[in-house]
Amino acid sequence: MKVGDRWYRTIWRDDDGLAVNVIDQTRLPHAFEIVRLESLEAAAEAICTMRVRGAPLIGATAAYGLALAIGEDPSDGALQHAVEFLSKTRPTAVNLRWALDEMVAMVEPLPPGDRADAAWVAAGRICDDDVNTCRDIGENGLGLLSELAERKPGDTVNVLTHCNAGWLATVDWGTALAPIYLAHDSGIKVHVWVDETRPRNQGAALTAFELGAHGVPHTLIADNAGGHLMQHGLVDICLVGSDRTTAGGDVANKIGTYLKALAARDNGVPFFVALPSTTIDWDMVDGVVEIPIEIRPPEELTWIEGRTPEGDLRQVEIAPPGCPAANFAFDVTPARLVDGLVTERGVCEASVQAISELFPDKATNLGGQNLDGSS
Amino acid sequence: MKVGDRWYRTIWRDDDGLAVNVIDQTRLPHAFEIVRLESLEAAAEAICTMRVRGAPLIGATAAYGLALAIGEDPSDGALQHAVEFLSKTRPTAVNLRWALDEMVAMVEPLPPGDRADAAWVAAGRICDDDVNTCRDIGENGLGLLSELAERKPGDTVNVLTHCNAGWLATVDWGTALAPIYLAHDSGIKVHVWVDETRPRNQGAALTAFELGAHGVPHTLIADNAGGHLMQHGLVDICLVGSDRTTAGGDVANKIGTYLKALAARDNGVPFFVALPSTTIDWDMVDGVVEIPIEIRPPEELTWIEGRTPEGDLRQVEIAPPGCPAANFAFDVTPARLVDGLVTERGVCEASVQAISELFPDKATNLGGQNLDGSS
Repeated sequence: MKVGDRWYRTIWRDDDGLAVNVIDQTRLPHAFEIVRLESLEAAAEAICTMRVRGAPLIGATAAYGLALAIGEDPSDGALQHAVEFLSKTRPTAVNLRWALDEMVAMVEPLPPGDRADAAWVAAGRICDDDVNTCRDIGENGLGLLSELAERKPGDTVNVLTHCNAGWLATVDWGTALAPIYLAHDSGIKVHVWVDETRPRNQGAALTAFELGAHGVPHTLIADNAGGHLMQHGLVDICLVGSDRTTAGGDVANKIGTYLKALAARDNGVPFFVALPSTTIDWDMVDGVVEIPIEIRPPEELTWIEGRTPEGDLRQVEIAPPGCPAANFAFDVTPARLVDGLVTERGVCEASVQAISELFPDKATNLGGQNLDGSS
Repeated sequence: MKVGDRWYRTIWRDDDGLAVNVIDQTRLPHAFEIVRLESLEAAAEAICTMRVRGAPLIGATAAYGLALAIGEDPSDGALQHAVEFLSKTRPTAVNLRWALDEMVAMVEPLPPGDRADAAWVAAGRICDDDVNTCRDIGENGLGLLSELAERKPGDTVNVLTHCNAGWLATVDWGTALAPIYLAHDSGIKVHVWVDETRPRNQGAALTAFELGAHGVPHTLIADNAGGHLMQHGLVDICLVGSDRTTAGGDVANKIGTYLKALAARDNGVPFFVALPSTTIDWDMVDGVVEIPIEIRPPEELTWIEGRTPEGDLRQVEIAPPGCPAANFAFDVTPARLVDGLVTERGVCEASVQAISELFPDKATNLGGQNLDGSS
């Protein structure tokens, strides 16, 4: 999407072909900086430290990380090592693993000498596919917003979103925000309530930034505020992303998503999750029990970076010194609270049956699962 | 409670009798500073800027503010002006109004020359009464924690709390934290999950500070985390305070409380609200419709104060420059989600009937209300 006068993707191969460039998202919204990643280690570091984040973009970065590794050493051993190294960078996002599997399937059968070029091509294709997928998610989700707009002619459709499932979380367009961009561009009056999303404030730092850059009306709120807004009819729909979705439609997304889903249900507000099918983990049904939840450093909660009135970026501590803190990165919203999944193939119910009907080709390994979700 | 070696109240008349001292809570947890309030305007400013906050402490500060005003001018006109001035400082806390009514009832019948001394005595009594009330709330709530402790012998009772309903919110002891202090002091193993409580971070700044000062085990969490903890059996009880409680048991408390009540209900976790009966608004039944919700400056969300590694306090901006933001200060948790109210007279159900049975003397003006709450 646009930043200033230029259209960016979040990740692209550098012109010299030797490295990959990413937008350093840890510097947003205070600075817009491009980082050049020249090695496996640099790609892994970018994922771990969340210079890149968002399930699809993590997958794309891992794919390019593997291409960089193969460029250095195309042997089977090095390939294996790189896959293991990258797969440990973030535990929750399933399409990190998916992207690595895709890459391995593409390059492993080739003689080592042909692997590097093939890996760059494969990583590029993963990126292009992601752009198309997100655009399709946008088109499919646009129907939901159009319908809400028709119900209140001339009035604004208020969407609540959590964390950042925008173009910065993907290669372009985004997942949850893709329908919003398309709605806005097609003239539908849309306004977004942006959850701040503590502790890393991706809502303030990324979602507010990218909506502002594109000109979509939005208002930043504390994570605590969504329930109050829904009680008072100020939210027409909740639209969030997913880091991992079970075959039964349970959704692991940024911590706090579950609380918004509860409030939506309590107030009759539709709650939809936008996701590429690559985030579906076909091996899991019960997300609350099965999905591993990443625990991140407590300092993400007790320290924060911001801009002083003089314009300097400073880290400040916002808790008592030595205060014990726990930093769970995700929670799981059970399928029963999800009104629908917005995917690249269409919108479906959050159930084993509806999901496998939409993706019969991908749901093939559900044979061992109990289809009523009670396994 | 104790800070260092000394036992403090949050508010006390200065030794010279001409002013009142308060702990400046906007400086916590970074600095422990006492502010001397010498005028009506200073007292009102302390309430508006949240140097003092928490419904009971706001009431106590307003009472002393009135005493300061009467000391300057004991006329009927000045008294009336001071009451109006103070009652506008914060719109949601009902016992701000209650404390002012108490004060007026005490001093207005007196000849102007006798009013100042009587006002200081009355304000002092409001403070002493609050200490006794909070201690009683603590004793009554202690039963809930003892019962949970008996069910898991040797194990820790995990309490989740939101915002600060500790001694810093009252004159001493606190409301929601009073049972926790008594449980801890009586040898019950208790651990508190402390919601950070954006945007003003009273959980980090005040609750974590005061629990730490008293030695109660606690862990700071993002407001987003409570649902995840409850899903995984890591919370035995939620215990929060109230800024205004309707006669039907709806609870206006710090924004985000409602979301925790929803998660508690969804996971079978008991959700209790601790409150002095002075926070009960006997004229209201439907809190979601009737309780006015304060909207505070958006800068509380987009700027934050913290301590640099060098130890300086700095304000930093944490949102994109010019980002629109909305800052709702409270939300209302409907009585149906509240398992019980912990008051100075005992624990009761959150219903018109149970509340009026516990407070028959105070519930006298309920005659015009529909007792089933459907008015």
